[in-house]
Amino acid sequence: MNNLTDTPVPDPGSGGDKKESKQSSALKKTSRYRSRSLSASSTDSFSSASYTGSSSDDGDDVPPREKVQKNSKGNADFCVRNINQQGFGRREIEIAEQEMPGIMALRKRAADDKPLKDAKIVGCTHINAQTAVLIETLVELGASVRWAACNIYSTQNEVAAALAELDIPIFAWRGETEEDFWWCIDRCVNAENWQPNMILDDGGDATHLMLKKYPTMFKLVKGIVEESVTGVHRLYQLSKAGKLTVPAMNVNDSVTKTKFDNLYSCKESILDSLKRSTDVMFGGKQVVVCGYGDVGKGCAQALKGQGCIVYITEIDPICALQASMDGFRVVKLNEVIRNVDIVVTATGNKNVVVREHMDKMKSGCIVCNMGHSNTEIDVNSLRTPDLTWEKVRSQVDHIIWPEGKYIILLAEGRLVNLSCSSIPSFAVSITSATQALALIELFNAPPGRYKSDVYLLPKKMDEYVASLHLPTFDAHLTELTDEQAKYMGLNKAGPFKPNYYRY
Amino acid sequence: MNNLTDTPVPDPGSGGDKKESKQSSALKKTSRYRSRSLSASSTDSFSSASYTGSSSDDGDDVPPREKVQKNSKGNADFCVRNINQQGFGRREIEIAEQEMPGIMALRKRAADDKPLKDAKIVGCTHINAQTAVLIETLVELGASVRWAACNIYSTQNEVAAALAELDIPIFAWRGETEEDFWWCIDRCVNAENWQPNMILDDGGDATHLMLKKYPTMFKLVKGIVEESVTGVHRLYQLSKAGKLTVPAMNVNDSVTKTKFDNLYSCKESILDSLKRSTDVMFGGKQVVVCGYGDVGKGCAQALKGQGCIVYITEIDPICALQASMDGFRVVKLNEVIRNVDIVVTATGNKNVVVREHMDKMKSGCIVCNMGHSNTEIDVNSLRTPDLTWEKVRSQVDHIIWPEGKYIILLAEGRLVNLSCSSIPSFAVSITSATQALALIELFNAPPGRYKSDVYLLPKKMDEYVASLHLPTFDAHLTELTDEQAKYMGLNKAGPFKPNYYRY
Amino acid sequence: MNNLTDTPVPDPGSGGDKKESKQSSALKKTSRYRSRSLSASSTDSFSSASYTGSSSDDGDDVPPREKVQKNSKGNADFCVRNINQQGFGRREIEIAEQEMPGIMALRKRAADDKPLKDAKIVGCTHINAQTAVLIETLVELGASVRWAACNIYSTQNEVAAALAELDIPIFAWRGETEEDFWWCIDRCVNAENWQPNMILDDGGDATHLMLKKYPTMFKLVKGIVEESVTGVHRLYQLSKAGKLTVPAMNVNDSVTKTKFDNLYSCKESILDSLKRSTDVMFGGKQVVVCGYGDVGKGCAQALKGQGCIVYITEIDPICALQASMDGFRVVKLNEVIRNVDIVVTATGNKNVVVREHMDKMKSGCIVCNMGHSNTEIDVNSLRTPDLTWEKVRSQVDHIIWPEGKYIILLAEGRLVNLSCSSIPSFAVSITSATQALALIELFNAPPGRYKSDVYLLPKKMDEYVASLHLPTFDAHLTELTDEQAKYMGLNKAGPFKPNYYRY
Amino acid sequence: MNNLTDTPVPDPGSGGDKKESKQSSALKKTSRYRSRSLSASSTDSFSSASYTGSSSDDGDDVPPREKVQKNSKGNADFCVRNINQQGFGRREIEIAEQEMPGIMALRKRAADDKPLKDAKIVGCTHINAQTAVLIETLVELGASVRWAACNIYSTQNEVAAALAELDIPIFAWRGETEEDFWWCIDRCVNAENWQPNMILDDGGDATHLMLKKYPTMFKLVKGIVEESVTGVHRLYQLSKAGKLTVPAMNVNDSVTKTKFDNLYSCKESILDSLKRSTDVMFGGKQVVVCGYGDVGKGCAQALKGQGCIVYITEIDPICALQASMDGFRVVKLNEVIRNVDIVVTATGNKNVVVREHMDKMKSGCIVCNMGHSNTEIDVNSLRTPDLTWEKVRSQVDHIIWPEGKYIILLAEGRLVNLSCSSIPSFAVSITSATQALALIELFNAPPGRYKSDVYLLPKKMDEYVASLHLPTFDAHLTELTDEQAKYMGLNKAGPFKPNYYRY
Repeated sequence: MNNLTDTPVPDPGSGGDKKESKQSSALKKTSRYRSRSLSASSTDSFSSASYTGSSSDDGDDVPPREKVQKNSKGNADFCVRNINQQGFGRREIEIAEQEMPGIMALRKRAADDKPLKDAKIVGCTHINAQTAVLIETLVELGASVRWAACNIYSTQNEVAAALAELDIPIFAWRGETEEDFWWCIDRCVNAENWQPNMILDDGGDATHLMLKKYPTMFKLVKGIVEESVTGVHRLYQLSKAGKLTVPAMNVNDSVTKTKFDNLYSCKESILDSLKRSTDVMFGGKQVVVCGYGDVGKGCAQALKGQGCIVYITEIDPICALQASMDGFRVVKLNEVIRNVDIVVTATGNKNVVVREHMDKMKSGCIVCNMGHSNTEIDVNSLRTPDLTWEKVRSQVDHIIWPEGKYIILLAEGRLVNLSCSSIPSFAVSITSATQALALIELFNAPPGRYKSDVYLLPKKMDEYVASLHLPTFDAHLTELTDEQAKYMGLNKAGPFKPNYYRY
Repeated sequence: MNNLTDTPVPDPGSGGDKKESKQSSALKKTSRYRSRSLSASSTDSFSSASYTGSSSDDGDDVPPREKVQKNSKGNADFCVRNINQQGFGRREIEIAEQEMPGIMALRKRAADDKPLKDAKIVGCTHINAQTAVLIETLVELGASVRWAACNIYSTQNEVAAALAELDIPIFAWRGETEEDFWWCIDRCVNAENWQPNMILDDGGDATHLMLKKYPTMFKLVKGIVEESVTGVHRLYQLSKAGKLTVPAMNVNDSVTKTKFDNLYSCKESILDSLKRSTDVMFGGKQVVVCGYGDVGKGCAQALKGQGCIVYITEIDPICALQASMDGFRVVKLNEVIRNVDIVVTATGNKNVVVREHMDKMKSGCIVCNMGHSNTEIDVNSLRTPDLTWEKVRSQVDHIIWPEGKYIILLAEGRLVNLSCSSIPSFAVSITSATQALALIELFNAPPGRYKSDVYLLPKKMDEYVASLHLPTFDAHLTELTDEQAKYMGLNKAGPFKPNYYRY
Repeated sequence: MNNLTDTPVPDPGSGGDKKESKQSSALKKTSRYRSRSLSASSTDSFSSASYTGSSSDDGDDVPPREKVQKNSKGNADFCVRNINQQGFGRREIEIAEQEMPGIMALRKRAADDKPLKDAKIVGCTHINAQTAVLIETLVELGASVRWAACNIYSTQNEVAAALAELDIPIFAWRGETEEDFWWCIDRCVNAENWQPNMILDDGGDATHLMLKKYPTMFKLVKGIVEESVTGVHRLYQLSKAGKLTVPAMNVNDSVTKTKFDNLYSCKESILDSLKRSTDVMFGGKQVVVCGYGDVGKGCAQALKGQGCIVYITEIDPICALQASMDGFRVVKLNEVIRNVDIVVTATGNKNVVVREHMDKMKSGCIVCNMGHSNTEIDVNSLRTPDLTWEKVRSQVDHIIWPEGKYIILLAEGRLVNLSCSSIPSFAVSITSATQALALIELFNAPPGRYKSDVYLLPKKMDEYVASLHLPTFDAHLTELTDEQAKYMGLNKAGPFKPNYYRY
Repeated sequence: MNNLTDTPVPDPGSGGDKKESKQSSALKKTSRYRSRSLSASSTDSFSSASYTGSSSDDGDDVPPREKVQKNSKGNADFCVRNINQQGFGRREIEIAEQEMPGIMALRKRAADDKPLKDAKIVGCTHINAQTAVLIETLVELGASVRWAACNIYSTQNEVAAALAELDIPIFAWRGETEEDFWWCIDRCVNAENWQPNMILDDGGDATHLMLKKYPTMFKLVKGIVEESVTGVHRLYQLSKAGKLTVPAMNVNDSVTKTKFDNLYSCKESILDSLKRSTDVMFGGKQVVVCGYGDVGKGCAQALKGQGCIVYITEIDPICALQASMDGFRVVKLNEVIRNVDIVVTATGNKNVVVREHMDKMKSGCIVCNMGHSNTEIDVNSLRTPDLTWEKVRSQVDHIIWPEGKYIILLAEGRLVNLSCSSIPSFAVSITSATQALALIELFNAPPGRYKSDVYLLPKKMDEYVASLHLPTFDAHLTELTDEQAKYMGLNKAGPFKPNYYRY
């Protein structure tokens, strides 16, 4: 819920703020783009890449835009760090495919129908192995695509190369400048013989650019699918302002996204993030989790399961009551801050952990952020002359107080699950399938079904996405008998629940 | 989701179906009234009463309506089994008060304001210690009340006596005839110097009777609060038919009801129900839970926690995916029916377990129903000449096949948590506080806020109900700073979530 | 670890302490015999009997010893409360058989061999449905038996009647006087044409009586199997004093007993005990469990699983470290006593909860004992004039302080799992099978294998007992290959672990 | 339980098997030394080092023995890879100290007493940050030490450098040849002015070498502390053969080792190992864990806690019954091998998973070993021409069948927790404190207390080690009152349990 006032979107046409020093600009960009990384497909490729020994350091400092590269077929309609990395990228994509059964099933089922035939999609998302699976699926389903990154740091260069090798026009590399960033998007929107009719956006930048710079082209778009909190927020603003001239699908609030991506992903990644970065033992550790929404619930459950003693802070009495009934003490942060071994933020709010709290923490306390922005921990308050920062590992800083006490800050307060762990491909698979279905729905909807407004995915599609993932678990659905369907007043094929059902 | 066709509501003015034989009538009534017992305040007093040794058998066969009874103050405006049982009933009420902190806190906070001053409430609910706490709270808050039972079997006679002793006009006893049933409600609706202006209903019978028999009186009512699935269904039918002339509050779908009452109550009561009735050991038992809604989730979690191996059946792919991710095998009933030790239904549907399944069960298999009606297990299919029924304990039957195999049927397929366990007073406290707040809201709402329609409780009140229960857990809420509230776009006092939030 | 100084064993030959007033004698007896109830087969039949409505009150005050009773075959060699109750007792035995797969499997497998042919067993144990299954198994295996109760209160009269109906000489009823108690045992030891050669004891009373009163007979005994802590302690005393002239088997410390009976039984029964007696909701309750041995571990795990916040007190740093690693705060009782909702003792020690603690508890705090004796809670300190006791249900007392605060004491501080819940038959099955195997082993051992000492059951028999119970769970053992057995240095048939293995 | 026949210990004096080809020798050595890595202090430094980017590759191929190196004080009595890496090593040691509260507390408490004054210790263990903390503690307590590695692959070079910088004579580097290996140990045993009087061994090699090559020196040793299964086995063999002329302490079977190191460490590291190597999502995965000893229990519990469906295979009916009661299906491997997603071995046996099983696995199945040797998975059976090995990440191989199916083999079947995760320093701290206490006990024991035999650590010391670790958890022990101690027959200071207590 990063509001737009806080992170003003620069007009891509202007360039006013490009003059500042390089470093401060980089810092700003970090915080700016990171703030969008709540989106499900956001996965920082750091960890897996670092494992393989392969990395973005290709010993080649030529900026990609200045390079001349062709893929093995002679095609040059792309811009990536190094086309030669494609072999490794292809392997990473193949591994991801194994854990993305839903999107692969969709690819298989719909391959003959080509439901996206004639769709021309501008994509702007994180670019990593999992999104590559999505992109290649869209192509299999008949679409033409052009793709850019929604984040200057998150591109997995090898994967981008692998996509380019398949003649997919991709414009993205890790470590773009802000100018590069907008250039890449522009290259996806505006190309020869290319009138896009769909946008798949993660953060709203492709939508923004096309609307501002190519308003005529924008009017011919049939639909927008938006993934992130920020992007959805921007769409609602546009809609309120009367400027949204095409239907848009908010997939951020679909049940498969909120329940699966938030709850289950975080349940898996909190343990992984803490272990990989600090090797901490969980048994008996005292942890405070700030916030008991879906993310906080997932974290608290996983940590308790591994033997931690977990405290919760909450502002909402209903969530607080849930925490209580689930067996967690609900406290104010100050009540436990001197005793806890680990602090996890999961509120979506700002300044939840401030300097005053950190002054009270015991030495060795680990502090990390699982919420959605980089604002939850007031990291700036730690950048004072009396404190010493020592980087002990990648993504791990010791902040040392004059008297010798130190705290362990992960990922400099940014999202620790993106920086210090991998995101389960399976969760991404659910979101990707949702995005693909949303594209199909908007692209094929009869005229009039959707107006120029922001829509939630029809529940039936949510159910379809779920059903695509059941074979992975060898799960067998029961079918209603006619008599039962009648008794319940349901259609045998669903949807099975009222819209307000909470799951 | 018991539809009305299945359980026709007799016109209280007619008496057509009173002619059938006594036994068949009793059977019908059982199934009829039981079908409403999903409501949160539904608690069969069987178990606690059976513990105390005191019971409904007071060695007195005179029908209550033919008795002349007065309380110690000489007041005779009530009709209960035996006013002399009031001492024991008072003690049960006092015990219940201890576990109902929310409603007690509301009583305390609002006692001076008397927000129900001049309210004249007709109540028709189960009558037990917990509802007594609600009733006495309403009186404390300024209301006048007249109260009847919504179920001919569920009244705790001692509690009814204790209420009568306090001059509360109460008309209810365990084992009413159908005629008694309507007579009691009538006595609450229609009395001297009594124009009711509010209805608190659980199943819709008081509403129904007043609307049919006293339409003029009904028009003067300011609001109806309805608790049960069935009653809510009837209200929506009335509304659709244009016959609802007053605003009604559906408290059945408030978050505090669905999440707390269904999930947590069932999590507590499934273990208790099975243990009390069968003394079964849980460790290593194979259990199939049919349905993974809130009730199924609670059951599955509790049983797994005690060492059972739990299988799930589901019709809805989203719930099935949740079950899978939570670590349960999702199967069709036939795949596991030969191997399981316990079958629990929690679907809200009918004929989920049928004779064909029961023919395949292994000897000693326990079968019970945690859903909402008595239709989930096709018990009638077991009433065939080849099978022998043997009652081994109260609420426990062995159904014996010719070859010697038997299954253990609990509560004859009715709700096992109502029949074989107690309902935690705490969960009831949440629902009671919700009911009381709904009455206050409707009674005090400025003209025009509510039209003649069915409403959900405002989220802010849901949050207030939750906050009333936090002190029990010594839970301490965090307050938003001004800066944080602004950042989130929230009012510091709530509501804290959008209406579609799933918790 | 009840030491003998505290509970002096009266010489059955003398009668010195029979002169005291009847009431004080009754009190003493209670505490005395209760102190033995740690033994695995100890199950107070209260709960199940109370369910059936049938009870020991048969409206017949004639002392059993003065009655003339015959079973349907005309046999009169028994003394029970009422032979006519046998039908109900038989049904309870049949129910128990369903949940005792191990002992039933043993009965079946060994029925042809008759390994106890010519064994003449004096039994002295609790008498309930589960022990009846053991007794009838011994008879099936070829033994002759005569049986008395080891506790004056715990006999299930209907079961005793059912055994008598089968011509098993049984001498036991609920509510024996102390004189009755010794008379019954004497009738089992000393009968016409009866030279017993085996003793199955639970508390050591049969052994004691035979040794003291019939020393010649005692010398002809081939072996003793003892079940209880107390009895084992007495055997070791005898052995040390050089008075043990026969081999004895200590089945109390076999792994199947300590790990299964203590850990798993308590895990099941703590929830049941608290629920049945108080209907308490577990979610969010703060509980302190005193002691983290097997019983404490089982309680803590079960309570945490149901959503309680559990604190542990410990004296042993190793157990304390286990508790910490398992995610429990280890505290001194005084640190949490003002805040907890439930106090559970599981130490085996005395005065763990004393008046000073109870003075500090908050109103409504539940106090109960899961340890082995009735000494853990200093109940006597509550019997002072300033406190009021109010019995609110069977086994539930409110102790009320002058200022109105009260605590809820369960089972007057005696073992709450025996008083307020049922014991899973399955756990009893394990212990019963162990007892039967110990009898078989001692009875058939070649001369010289066992000397006049106290032995633990050979590990191989422990493993055999376990294997008898696996079919219940449809569990399939893997068999070592020859190569694997050789690699591990194991016999393919076991034993599989060194003696010091901790499981 | 690697027996000596399988892994013959080469006579260091001979050199007979040095002639074989380099590769086969390397392979042999791997399997040989790996087989010792069960010991608690065994931690492969791979993971943490790989995080820092620093690695053993120092761009320097000069064999350490041929280098001339001095530390900053001019001291040259050591042999490590590169003394200049000491700075990074020191930081790793400091991080380890934070998580090793027990050994640090011991260091602090005993620093003044210098209980190891005049002790001259030959150490031969894995060399990593955690053992560095132990070594430096021994020095603080007064000992002189000389130290070698017990494994040619496990040395953390930077840590060895940091020790050398502190003038600790250390002879170890990652990637020693077998000749290097024995040379290093020799340099620790045999040095100028050095008559060792204590041995701290992990695998028995230092003991072996001294006994064979310097028998006179060996006779002057006061005691041996041995950590590993293999080493303990060798000591018992020596003892049986009458060749053990000094007392030895078996710390491998102390309760703090078996219960904490095996159960808790594995509970933490199984999740970490699988996540880091494969990024697998746990929710809903079907896993078979072979073996339900302490390691298997830890794995099964952790995996279930994260939402896996876990099956167990067992040969021991007692452990199988525990698994059943804990809610796991006990199966034969063949029953589930076609369906599971993950196979984990934890048996300590050989050929538990063989080619026949792997032929049946489904594509993508992950196979890993948590047991103690590299024999559990028959990896050799996969080295056939029809199968293709593809290394996809470090420690991760895809083995591809002709038809395209592949399985994912971790760490080539060696211990996955050593190869793919970090070992919690806290668990190592417990073992290290145990080793230090064993050294102190043996070194200071009055003559006669210990004979030339193998001893278990006195229970009181086990309890002391535990108590050293309680402050980490802010755990507060309760003290027995005099009355309670008397009642229990215990000394107030412990030991608190009989030797056979199972915890």
